[in-house]
Amino acid sequence: MTGKPDQNQAKAGRITISVDAMGGDAGPAVVVAGIAMSAEKNPDIGFILHGPAEQLKPLVARKRTLEGRVEIRDVRDVVTMEDKPSQVMRNGKGTSMWSALDAIKNGEAAGAVSCGNTGALMALSMLRLRKLPGVNRPAIAILWPSLNPQGFNVMLDVGADVKADAEDLLQYALMGTSYVRNSMDIARPRVGLLNVGTEEHKGSAVLKEAHALIAGHAAQANYEFTGFVEGSDIPGDTADVIVTDGFTGNVAIKTGEGTARVMRTALREAFEYSFLSRIAAVLAMTSLKRLSKRMDPRRVNGGVFLGLNGTVVKSHGGADAMGVSAAVKLAFRLAQHGFAEKLAARVASAGAHTQDDTAPRGMRAATEKD
Amino acid sequence: MTGKPDQNQAKAGRITISVDAMGGDAGPAVVVAGIAMSAEKNPDIGFILHGPAEQLKPLVARKRTLEGRVEIRDVRDVVTMEDKPSQVMRNGKGTSMWSALDAIKNGEAAGAVSCGNTGALMALSMLRLRKLPGVNRPAIAILWPSLNPQGFNVMLDVGADVKADAEDLLQYALMGTSYVRNSMDIARPRVGLLNVGTEEHKGSAVLKEAHALIAGHAAQANYEFTGFVEGSDIPGDTADVIVTDGFTGNVAIKTGEGTARVMRTALREAFEYSFLSRIAAVLAMTSLKRLSKRMDPRRVNGGVFLGLNGTVVKSHGGADAMGVSAAVKLAFRLAQHGFAEKLAARVASAGAHTQDDTAPRGMRAATEKD
Repeated sequence: MTGKPDQNQAKAGRITISVDAMGGDAGPAVVVAGIAMSAEKNPDIGFILHGPAEQLKPLVARKRTLEGRVEIRDVRDVVTMEDKPSQVMRNGKGTSMWSALDAIKNGEAAGAVSCGNTGALMALSMLRLRKLPGVNRPAIAILWPSLNPQGFNVMLDVGADVKADAEDLLQYALMGTSYVRNSMDIARPRVGLLNVGTEEHKGSAVLKEAHALIAGHAAQANYEFTGFVEGSDIPGDTADVIVTDGFTGNVAIKTGEGTARVMRTALREAFEYSFLSRIAAVLAMTSLKRLSKRMDPRRVNGGVFLGLNGTVVKSHGGADAMGVSAAVKLAFRLAQHGFAEKLAARVASAGAHTQDDTAPRGMRAATEKD
Repeated sequence: MTGKPDQNQAKAGRITISVDAMGGDAGPAVVVAGIAMSAEKNPDIGFILHGPAEQLKPLVARKRTLEGRVEIRDVRDVVTMEDKPSQVMRNGKGTSMWSALDAIKNGEAAGAVSCGNTGALMALSMLRLRKLPGVNRPAIAILWPSLNPQGFNVMLDVGADVKADAEDLLQYALMGTSYVRNSMDIARPRVGLLNVGTEEHKGSAVLKEAHALIAGHAAQANYEFTGFVEGSDIPGDTADVIVTDGFTGNVAIKTGEGTARVMRTALREAFEYSFLSRIAAVLAMTSLKRLSKRMDPRRVNGGVFLGLNGTVVKSHGGADAMGVSAAVKLAFRLAQHGFAEKLAARVASAGAHTQDDTAPRGMRAATEKD
């Protein structure tokens, strides 16, 4: 797809994001409200929207800000949360998810966003977009609220694949640092490898091997390797990129999200408990709103699929309009930075040191923020 | 050790807990303050305290409530947080940790508590107390604040061993339910197996095999198997016992603890932000204290080592007096219920269905709360 998004961008004067309108918990109305929020804030964005036209047309027509900026692709089928990835790969051709990915494949859009079934979206993305040369396992990277100056860490993999060997973990480190450079302004990200302790003798043989590999590539790939990190470092200020296998990463993010949700509920109950505490809540409103905004998972909605020929952002299935808008913004920002092309160059360049040079011609040119 | 704690209990009219005074981050003064808090609340508890006598004697003498209830064992060496388990197993004989465990082994105490190095404590516990017949890997179980009626889940393993096969996970389910029955009043605990999704086709081959094994033992061992659970279910109300391998469990608890700590800090900052929010904090004091108490990790301090001939409670290394007291209370409660003996009977009874009967004579008698 290299080059095609740029043509598209030049032609339309804006960046086009392909959006799967179906498959989220809240239905297409919320997705349309989300892209309308994005369009309102960003004059340089346009959309291709995938789903049943008779549902989408009236929703889009109601949003003035979307006038002339949305192309609807009429597709009838929807991937549900219950569908198995293997079924979707065989029978998914008429779905909005498939159509949304094909718009990247055909160079019509610079990135895709879907709120649908994660497993199916990853399977279809691999099928339609294919893995980057040299990538064994693509990964899902998410932003995690943390005490870092930038307010977030990137963690990967959080569930593309339940397994990862040492080479995979090295690639996650390379892809994660590339992602951080293109979504935040950090020239030399700190990389930590998730383990049960920070001492070098801890953990499995795979982790020890990955430790050596990631340490060995730090200078060449321009990141700082902080070594093993623990679960408590994920929301801390130890690393900008947390590398782990998809099983551990998935359990960690869901545990963190669950803990935060329980605490928010308990806080709300505490303020509703008595007359005095209700008054206190009113007085503290501004401070509590600031806290709530800082901790709001919707602000950082969007898992990015790394290691594919194209940028795919998975929005949370239960995202509201603000969440969808955040996912769209992320896809836009990565497209604007030419992230997919830079990542391809980075992986190819690292691969060249350990394997035969498989980098496609011309891909090595990317240097600015790779 | 079966029988000996009862003799001890009968002789002294109270239950004796063996306490390692050394190795915690805050030193022996905090440990002594902790056991004094326990002694104050509980007239049926006595202590054997292990560490350098010249340090411990004045500390104990200063606490009136400890008069006549503490026997000091003078040992010179201390296991530090930096010591490797293998070193401690070879050279740890003169340490307070070793001595604390030997008091269980010799039947002088019904349970042991240490704030020291987790890896060393587990290695020494296995060396001195030995594994229960039929147990392959002992596990560390912790209480986790949750939305359950009882306010806590039990999760295991959280770090005794980084690996676990399907048989190990079944044993964790059996040991965890036994623990829940003896530390909370739940006759038929709900057991969940931690995975990246709740659908039966998800996860590794080991998890699928464990799913079948745990389901197959539910009726006989009198628990309800709720199937696969996700990280978000850990602080929820889906299961009373969460079963996982030590690597995943360790990352999950540290991620949850880290997230909770960051949120508490952010909440404090929010209330210190402005004049109005400071007034609000004063008005909401009672409610916030209630919330803080509910979320206070010190209340549930204590990882229990399961699968050994004896009860060992690992207190957090950074525990304060209240934390130490909570760990002591847990050891006392489990001793009071004859937990170690009941657990042995439970594991032996489950083993009898899949292997040759290795249960020692007479152990099958335990029925009340096994």
